[in-house]
Amino acid sequence: MFDSMKIERRLAKSDFKALEPKLHEDLLDRQAELIAGRARSILVLVNGADGAGKGAVLNQLYGWLDVRKLRTLTYGAPTDEERARPGIWRYWRDMPAAGEIGIVLGSWYHDVLADHVLNGETDALFTQRLDEIRRLEAMLRREGVFLLKLWLYLEPQEALARLKALKRNPFDRPLVREWSAIKSKKQRRHLEESAVEAFRLTSTPEAPWIVVPSEDGRFRDAMVGGALLETLGRAIASQPRAGAEADASAGAAPPRETETDETIASLLPKASILSTVDLTRTLEEEDYRAELETQQTRISRLTQSSAFQRRGLVCVFEGSDAAGKSSTIMRLRQALDPRCFRVHPIAAPTDEERARPYLWRFWRSVPARGHIAVFDRSWYGRVLVERVEKLAQPEDWGRAYDEINDFEHRLDEAGYIVVKFWLAISQEEQARRFEARERVAYKRFKLTPEDWRNREKWPLYEEAVTDMVDRTSTFYAPWTLVSAEDKRWCRVAVLSTIADRLDAALK
Amino acid sequence: MFDSMKIERRLAKSDFKALEPKLHEDLLDRQAELIAGRARSILVLVNGADGAGKGAVLNQLYGWLDVRKLRTLTYGAPTDEERARPGIWRYWRDMPAAGEIGIVLGSWYHDVLADHVLNGETDALFTQRLDEIRRLEAMLRREGVFLLKLWLYLEPQEALARLKALKRNPFDRPLVREWSAIKSKKQRRHLEESAVEAFRLTSTPEAPWIVVPSEDGRFRDAMVGGALLETLGRAIASQPRAGAEADASAGAAPPRETETDETIASLLPKASILSTVDLTRTLEEEDYRAELETQQTRISRLTQSSAFQRRGLVCVFEGSDAAGKSSTIMRLRQALDPRCFRVHPIAAPTDEERARPYLWRFWRSVPARGHIAVFDRSWYGRVLVERVEKLAQPEDWGRAYDEINDFEHRLDEAGYIVVKFWLAISQEEQARRFEARERVAYKRFKLTPEDWRNREKWPLYEEAVTDMVDRTSTFYAPWTLVSAEDKRWCRVAVLSTIADRLDAALK
Repeated sequence: MFDSMKIERRLAKSDFKALEPKLHEDLLDRQAELIAGRARSILVLVNGADGAGKGAVLNQLYGWLDVRKLRTLTYGAPTDEERARPGIWRYWRDMPAAGEIGIVLGSWYHDVLADHVLNGETDALFTQRLDEIRRLEAMLRREGVFLLKLWLYLEPQEALARLKALKRNPFDRPLVREWSAIKSKKQRRHLEESAVEAFRLTSTPEAPWIVVPSEDGRFRDAMVGGALLETLGRAIASQPRAGAEADASAGAAPPRETETDETIASLLPKASILSTVDLTRTLEEEDYRAELETQQTRISRLTQSSAFQRRGLVCVFEGSDAAGKSSTIMRLRQALDPRCFRVHPIAAPTDEERARPYLWRFWRSVPARGHIAVFDRSWYGRVLVERVEKLAQPEDWGRAYDEINDFEHRLDEAGYIVVKFWLAISQEEQARRFEARERVAYKRFKLTPEDWRNREKWPLYEEAVTDMVDRTSTFYAPWTLVSAEDKRWCRVAVLSTIADRLDAALK
Repeated sequence: MFDSMKIERRLAKSDFKALEPKLHEDLLDRQAELIAGRARSILVLVNGADGAGKGAVLNQLYGWLDVRKLRTLTYGAPTDEERARPGIWRYWRDMPAAGEIGIVLGSWYHDVLADHVLNGETDALFTQRLDEIRRLEAMLRREGVFLLKLWLYLEPQEALARLKALKRNPFDRPLVREWSAIKSKKQRRHLEESAVEAFRLTSTPEAPWIVVPSEDGRFRDAMVGGALLETLGRAIASQPRAGAEADASAGAAPPRETETDETIASLLPKASILSTVDLTRTLEEEDYRAELETQQTRISRLTQSSAFQRRGLVCVFEGSDAAGKSSTIMRLRQALDPRCFRVHPIAAPTDEERARPYLWRFWRSVPARGHIAVFDRSWYGRVLVERVEKLAQPEDWGRAYDEINDFEHRLDEAGYIVVKFWLAISQEEQARRFEARERVAYKRFKLTPEDWRNREKWPLYEEAVTDMVDRTSTFYAPWTLVSAEDKRWCRVAVLSTIADRLDAALK
């Protein structure tokens, strides 16, 4: 889920300086409208790794906003008064009034995450408490409290390095240390996994999570400022209009986009996740032969093990046209018992499929335990082709990320191993392959005029792939982005990934 | 939550005969629209006690609907094929196509309830699975599958009697027996409690639970027919209109109300829960003195116990004007240590309170552990005076039931004992008391012209009280309806109820 965080995101000092005065002004303007409206309030929950700059974000917001209607709400160890009452009481006590903005350090997520990660509270209890939070937040939203839920993200390596550096210079301590109790790498990973699970269960259209790449302070602050501006816009748009009938459930009026929104959007471009794939990797024929056989043997052995009979394997192949999905799948097929193996090529849905929820056709094809299903294109069509070609409404493909995560979570819970590949090639390589297909008679059937047309939408697909990987790469069903520029490299990378996942799961 | 089920609900044969042809015709008409629309489908989940008539409802629906687009989906012990896949797979496999209606016997709720009640699955896991169901249902609804979730309710006594009668006559067995594994009274109660918890966690505006009083077969069938008609109406209203842009998320057009909807509504009147209160109970002065002292002594002893120091007591007093709330609270006060006791009289909210979510003022007043808070009127104002006086929008007071249940659930989880009273008097007695207040100078301040005006809305309040008790009487925070016609009877009944609840909780 943090995959896109690997893309380096920085904001040059000059860009920040160009942006900041306008952002500052717009934030103040919108805050003034919020105050004048006296009908909505905002809670900014600042969560994330220690060292990512929670305190710095707080200070930056104090610099930008009218502090008379701004409050910091911090929660450490509970006081006597708090301990004597239900855990949630202290947050209720501090609820900002209409017109106010509250910045929360150590929100209700902290307690739940800490009890799970540090105190060993069970998964089921963790889920139960997150569900309580979801219900609380839904109610707050309907009562006019808008939530901006931020997770300041640092690569674990970077976080550790920062904390170490701070140890050497104790006067430069972070302002906010929520997670000092976390000592081991294992706990750190568990926190990250738990945070992702919390995002899955508590991201709602009304109160989504926003993950902020925080390595670069300027990028971080600008993104937080932009997100707050957007939340202010939604809150103001939902305010009952003066004179009009009071309508608490409003929100029909779309939030205004100001110039700053656009400026920030342009300064904080959606970097392409595909830029992180190294397309130069190759494999020599001889190495390829040997490696292929090794991996095929591993997969064959693992899928015939008795442990696998209680599990199942679901492989998803997505990628650019002509990236080599079919030929890669063929190499997988060679390793597998045909009685337990089935490939599902996914084209346009049939009438029967169209008459039902879009996941139905995939549920139909869920393999029995001990079996393997390969999807040559998949349910991700919803957020790829259907998004790009506008075959689905934005609200429909927008909700699909969560629905897909739930679907794969069900498979994972039931013991299935879910492996997902994006085969990446460059636009130039794709053109070469298309041309080759035109030349070879028996390959010509694979190429349609549509394939050429799709190439014009390459940037839109890149954006869709980035969002997809970002929002559906989970710990239970991660994406693997594979360079398919060299077919040999690609095939071996795919097969060894499958073998590794099987190995880890069946151990 | 099943409190209103105590009201006898029957439909005379003649009334049913008058209603049925029109209901039949309207159901067929709307089903034809559903079929022609080819965009929405309906799943009717038929759940409830054995013997309540699940099979009979199924047969009745087959009599009313066009069977070519109607399917029964029954789920018993899983088959080999089903066992080899995730538990939810079998429901997906049978998903009705657009235009179809599926009637589900043994829905996904059955598995979850059975695992909890019969196989001892933990509360946390139960909640987790219900949350998965909620997410599944939300997705189905957005994909055009409308759910009608029925719980056919029988008083436990009646259910047992029916099953016993059937044992004597094995040829007249119920058509559907889901719960034959339930043997003990305790299990039966656990099932009922768990069902209520399931309703709390999975009742959403899009897929609400409908509890059907099922003692009388005609009433039951008519109510089911009416509910299906209403669901069909909503499904059709949300269909993308022919010619218009496809819009899956439609639903803006309000469902049409046909004549039958109104006829059914008039034939199935909202019986008043207050009709179940016996207003003739009285207590003689001498017995009253003795009983009052006994109960006050119990309460005093229990609230001073060391066990109570880890708990807390929250009492809610609601009731008609002049029912005697204050004087009853005074008798409670006499039993309690004033340092640990506080009465919160609830009037119109202050400016500060109005600027925040409506539950904030009550969260403020949650007592510390070991303390007692009494609310003279309470958060129920939202669904009583605010509903009747139209101070809140229907969607706002409509969602308040769930929000209040969540609030009280939090208190219960944190160890608080929540006791709620409705003090009931007749309209005649109220008139007498108002007149007495007018005569006595020092009581005159208690009466305002508004009190007289409120009397005109008596039927609206009765409806609001019935809904309130029905939807917020939970196992963790049940309502007690007390006759206040005789003040002595009322005071003793209230105090002994509090003492009993304390006793049970602190044991």
